[in-house]
Amino acid sequence: MTTLVRSTWKRLRTNFNDPILRRNVSLYMGGKLLGLALVLVIMLLVIPKAVHAATGATVQTPEINAINTVWTLIAAFLVFCMQVGFVMLEAGFARSREAVNILVEGIADTCICGILFWAWGFAFMFEPGTPWIGTTGFFLNGLGPTYLTTGVPVLAYWVFQFAFADTASTITSGAMVGRCGFWGDIIYSIGVTGFIYPIVGHWAWGPDGWLAVMGFKDFAGSTVVHSIGGAISLAGAIALGPRLGRVFKRDGGGPPPAHDLIIGAVGGLILWFGWYGFNPGSTLSALDIQGIGRVSFNTTMAACSGGLVALFISYARSKKWDLGLTVNGFLGGLVAITCPCYWVSPTGAFFIGIVAAVVVVFGLDLLEYLRIDDPIGAVPVHLLAGIWGTLSLGLFATGQFGAPTPTGADTSSVITGLFYGGGVSLLGTQVVGSLSVVIATLVISGLMMFVLKKIGVLRISEKHEIEGMDIAEHGASAYPEYALAGVLPSLIGHELSNGAVVAGFSDAVASVEE
Amino acid sequence: MTTLVRSTWKRLRTNFNDPILRRNVSLYMGGKLLGLALVLVIMLLVIPKAVHAATGATVQTPEINAINTVWTLIAAFLVFCMQVGFVMLEAGFARSREAVNILVEGIADTCICGILFWAWGFAFMFEPGTPWIGTTGFFLNGLGPTYLTTGVPVLAYWVFQFAFADTASTITSGAMVGRCGFWGDIIYSIGVTGFIYPIVGHWAWGPDGWLAVMGFKDFAGSTVVHSIGGAISLAGAIALGPRLGRVFKRDGGGPPPAHDLIIGAVGGLILWFGWYGFNPGSTLSALDIQGIGRVSFNTTMAACSGGLVALFISYARSKKWDLGLTVNGFLGGLVAITCPCYWVSPTGAFFIGIVAAVVVVFGLDLLEYLRIDDPIGAVPVHLLAGIWGTLSLGLFATGQFGAPTPTGADTSSVITGLFYGGGVSLLGTQVVGSLSVVIATLVISGLMMFVLKKIGVLRISEKHEIEGMDIAEHGASAYPEYALAGVLPSLIGHELSNGAVVAGFSDAVASVEE
Amino acid sequence: MTTLVRSTWKRLRTNFNDPILRRNVSLYMGGKLLGLALVLVIMLLVIPKAVHAATGATVQTPEINAINTVWTLIAAFLVFCMQVGFVMLEAGFARSREAVNILVEGIADTCICGILFWAWGFAFMFEPGTPWIGTTGFFLNGLGPTYLTTGVPVLAYWVFQFAFADTASTITSGAMVGRCGFWGDIIYSIGVTGFIYPIVGHWAWGPDGWLAVMGFKDFAGSTVVHSIGGAISLAGAIALGPRLGRVFKRDGGGPPPAHDLIIGAVGGLILWFGWYGFNPGSTLSALDIQGIGRVSFNTTMAACSGGLVALFISYARSKKWDLGLTVNGFLGGLVAITCPCYWVSPTGAFFIGIVAAVVVVFGLDLLEYLRIDDPIGAVPVHLLAGIWGTLSLGLFATGQFGAPTPTGADTSSVITGLFYGGGVSLLGTQVVGSLSVVIATLVISGLMMFVLKKIGVLRISEKHEIEGMDIAEHGASAYPEYALAGVLPSLIGHELSNGAVVAGFSDAVASVEE
Repeated sequence: MTTLVRSTWKRLRTNFNDPILRRNVSLYMGGKLLGLALVLVIMLLVIPKAVHAATGATVQTPEINAINTVWTLIAAFLVFCMQVGFVMLEAGFARSREAVNILVEGIADTCICGILFWAWGFAFMFEPGTPWIGTTGFFLNGLGPTYLTTGVPVLAYWVFQFAFADTASTITSGAMVGRCGFWGDIIYSIGVTGFIYPIVGHWAWGPDGWLAVMGFKDFAGSTVVHSIGGAISLAGAIALGPRLGRVFKRDGGGPPPAHDLIIGAVGGLILWFGWYGFNPGSTLSALDIQGIGRVSFNTTMAACSGGLVALFISYARSKKWDLGLTVNGFLGGLVAITCPCYWVSPTGAFFIGIVAAVVVVFGLDLLEYLRIDDPIGAVPVHLLAGIWGTLSLGLFATGQFGAPTPTGADTSSVITGLFYGGGVSLLGTQVVGSLSVVIATLVISGLMMFVLKKIGVLRISEKHEIEGMDIAEHGASAYPEYALAGVLPSLIGHELSNGAVVAGFSDAVASVEE
Repeated sequence: MTTLVRSTWKRLRTNFNDPILRRNVSLYMGGKLLGLALVLVIMLLVIPKAVHAATGATVQTPEINAINTVWTLIAAFLVFCMQVGFVMLEAGFARSREAVNILVEGIADTCICGILFWAWGFAFMFEPGTPWIGTTGFFLNGLGPTYLTTGVPVLAYWVFQFAFADTASTITSGAMVGRCGFWGDIIYSIGVTGFIYPIVGHWAWGPDGWLAVMGFKDFAGSTVVHSIGGAISLAGAIALGPRLGRVFKRDGGGPPPAHDLIIGAVGGLILWFGWYGFNPGSTLSALDIQGIGRVSFNTTMAACSGGLVALFISYARSKKWDLGLTVNGFLGGLVAITCPCYWVSPTGAFFIGIVAAVVVVFGLDLLEYLRIDDPIGAVPVHLLAGIWGTLSLGLFATGQFGAPTPTGADTSSVITGLFYGGGVSLLGTQVVGSLSVVIATLVISGLMMFVLKKIGVLRISEKHEIEGMDIAEHGASAYPEYALAGVLPSLIGHELSNGAVVAGFSDAVASVEE
Repeated sequence: MTTLVRSTWKRLRTNFNDPILRRNVSLYMGGKLLGLALVLVIMLLVIPKAVHAATGATVQTPEINAINTVWTLIAAFLVFCMQVGFVMLEAGFARSREAVNILVEGIADTCICGILFWAWGFAFMFEPGTPWIGTTGFFLNGLGPTYLTTGVPVLAYWVFQFAFADTASTITSGAMVGRCGFWGDIIYSIGVTGFIYPIVGHWAWGPDGWLAVMGFKDFAGSTVVHSIGGAISLAGAIALGPRLGRVFKRDGGGPPPAHDLIIGAVGGLILWFGWYGFNPGSTLSALDIQGIGRVSFNTTMAACSGGLVALFISYARSKKWDLGLTVNGFLGGLVAITCPCYWVSPTGAFFIGIVAAVVVVFGLDLLEYLRIDDPIGAVPVHLLAGIWGTLSLGLFATGQFGAPTPTGADTSSVITGLFYGGGVSLLGTQVVGSLSVVIATLVISGLMMFVLKKIGVLRISEKHEIEGMDIAEHGASAYPEYALAGVLPSLIGHELSNGAVVAGFSDAVASVEE
């Protein structure tokens, strides 16, 4: 039986190595996507246009509904601005020949996410149904006019949650830079924003999600957004394997140089800026003024301590003040504080950021040791710091604040961490929540990546990888003028699989084409 | 008689080809501008400082005035941020030797717009007077303290409208990149923000504008901002003619390569971010929570469907996932949804975005076929998608919403499009409005461009164009270090009018100077 | 006696030239910093976690507290976004080999500022104590829950003031680009955000500050933020001396070329965007709708007139429309209007911007004449335009507005400038305030820079400077791919101290290492 499966599998694999067949599969997938679009259109036609028909409770007074809606929408806009930060961070820290791919990917992700999160993602994630998935509200049908107890309309709340879903999706691409084919990009992007993120997210944030019911807390998404995004990244990086010519530190190499540190670090700062929508906006209520103040403060503090610690670690190691590590340090602090920011004190945020930076540095080393090629550091920053942040709530929750309500933290059911005399109960819940989400995501996304790999759309061909993603998949270099002049040096000094060492840009292509 | 005119004209033209005369004219225009400044100063001195003296109705309660003012101002700041997006988009998609010009132009435009929109632009556009132009409120004199029925102070509202006017002005420059002299830039910029935009805009948005009275609807400016800006672009591109060495597709060529796709695409994403001020802010009231939620949602959806469709069109055509086309696709979706975003459903927004992307692609081809050189695609994105968006309201208005009021859509006078059983009446009005604005703008701006061309300040000399706008007009390359090293390859391979083909940067200049 | 001191001093200086000793001192300073961190941690443990315990007056109604808090926080986020602008402006206008340093410095500054402003900076600056310094509220202990009379929580207000302090600190780095060692950076950054800015700032903005009591007005910080930052810049630029190979105009040279004008100018525009948080946010109240409208308008107007005047000055001088000068022009306008924006009319703002641009241009010439190397123009823009702005209030205050209150300008104690019939009393107070702050800051920061210079951590070695800050201190070029290819031309044509002229990147390093 096993032999039969294995031989069938082998035959399938061999078959899929055929380029013509692969192209046909690509076309087939394209056909599927068109079909999907068609289905969407048909769904649109059959679903009654009743979005605004249902009644919802408006909170108290028109001005309170207004201020809460303004707060939620502006936060949503800032979270959307994180897309600018992500593409700059990823493109800057990548090589020049894969930078266009990152931009197209980031934009395509956003567009796919918008359509799917309207069609079913929001329903899967935020509507009631089962503890595992929401089952009503497709195309936001029947929801509204207001949605939240804070008086925010459903369409405004959707924009906020769309921006979150988009973030999860873009995180994923960071670890897959430089060798993931674009059909693969599109399909896994549909998997992430259409299925994995909303369904697993329902567990923690759905009204009847099993983790939510269990008491698992994740204020703005260290687990729901960052660990999910980071775990898919890890699955993708493993499934893809390292980029051509990537030699790891234990083999005497190291990551290839970034191509534009300025753009990359500016992207990191824009992410920090956008995080002020991500975390403080997650109160969904401006009336909770102490909450939004506290969250804004803690977000700042964890970023500061994380950045500074990473900076000093880089100096202690190499006597150089490393820019990339510093950026990843404050991003780690931001990811970690995202879960506990509502319930911890300034002191807690300070220490959570410090540990996050250590976790990120350790994670970068670990991936290098395991020979996993994560060009942007998505796994250490989003998965590992996300896990740390989720657990840290079990240590640092001060016992002053309970669940958020429209007017402030509930004081009748405060949560207290280990360091503040609350015992290990909260910590235990956080461990269960974090591990469940991470393991489930790894399994599902691993499966998805594996299938994509087997049908041959996950990784581009060696020839295309050497030519560069941008030329091969997008028909353009990021800096076409420089490419014309032959000065684009991404590959100079790289040894190819045929033993040749690239001396210049055109050399690389030529030596493979022969 | 005709002969007399023609010979006079010919003599004038010949005379203006004299470089000394042209310099004198330049100085003369400079003198005019100084004179203009002097007039401004004198006007300031004679106009009584009475801006804050008039009384205005405050709406309901102080907190409602406050929340509406905050909403309007933050939206204004986001719209201002679109300047960042525009200059990055235009500079990135241009060649490196004309990028500094784009930045200077964008900043100069903004500065000129601020002063003129204070002096008379706001008065022309938003004050009563005749159906064709406002006639009171110069230097905002006599207006305020609050201005709108939503309780927003006149100075806050001005900042919002200044940012809009600035957008219209910057759009214009996109089609004129690379060959428009800076005196020409300054003068047409005065024409756009001081006269064309506010006067034509008054027709649709003035309290007694003839199109407004007729029932023409343009929520946030698909026509007023984008079609006006795009139509001036078209007039400018035609008047200027194509850049040197620009070979069109039907002649076996194509647009010259962009010089920094990363900066360009990031600029596009920043525009999307800023659009969240542009459209939702146009309610001018946060109390209309359903309105701002709906507008935010529809803006997102049209961008997503537009971007995705353009991406797939590019792939279908060339098997490459084109970055530039994808960016223009979501921008087209954003331009199109700008007019109807208040009155359509999510489904409507989805389809409006799809059609917008098709319109943009068709428009790019059409310009290429007509041999019109629009380096950034300002005409397809802003003029054509703007027309489509304006008309689309006549098809997709759901019949649920009427004119915006401070607390929400008026339900006593809903508007209904053809697809929702409303017949062709709304569509007809939209056609009349869109065509009137576009034709009037084309005629006026065409005349302006023609005059600028005739006095010799519109297009730079061939020598300067080959040298590059940046060196010739601004004394600096965008990347001076690289220019020093001789690696700036904008012109490599270009054939000059004297038959020489440029091999390197210094060559180009040398071969013309001989 | 004098001889003894001098000889001791000389011996000390000679000793510190020893590289081994210097490294030891560096390590010693590193130890000190770790010690500082330790002290911070211990302070954390001994200080009772009582931050949220104290009671504070909430203003009027929950919705008013909420709208004021939202306004203050969003303004804070926009001010934080200025960090993005600053690093882009500085990196773009610097040479490529010192751009990474600027990014690391900007981020490190921010992180240090966050921690120190929490630990004691906020207490020094905003808490009562003496006219010279605040003495309570360390670690925000005992403050809150709300803090301001506008009902804003202390933690939200802290985020706003942190972003301001961070700005002051980042300004400083602009004049010290390209030759300041990173230990020096870290230590002066601690001096700026931990001591100089909060203590001198207390004089003007503290509840019992001696300048505040005297009637000195500085609405959003032309003096407190910009003059302090600019004066420290000046002290730093003098203490450091010019960059290697920097030839001044009177010696037949000029500043070295910027390396990326696009990034630099975009950074300037992002600063303008962030300024809409800086100035309008400083009302700390959204209920003052006339105030926030007026401030937003005036901020826009001064930037527009400043930018336009600088543009025309550049053209008048060189027949080139200079991008760098235009950016510095509108930034000068923004700095100048920062103090008076609450109390002047649109006309006033227009003229304040015009003069600011002239001041900036004059200042750039003056520094060039004095052979002071300020690579980014921090001194003209922030110090000189800051002084002008502070004084301009004494000329242009209209006599319509008094001190800001939660609901608008106090009308019982209006302030009136010289041009509006108010005599010279206000002008006199502004002169005293501006000069006191500038002189005190110059003295203190000059002392600090002198000490740093003497212990050898202020300026990097000549070898490292030629190698480039980025390689020497941060182990990375901003554009590593290009550096690999040998096309990074920062130094091409520079004459080194040993007489060699650099022909290429590797040459420069080699010629010094020999």
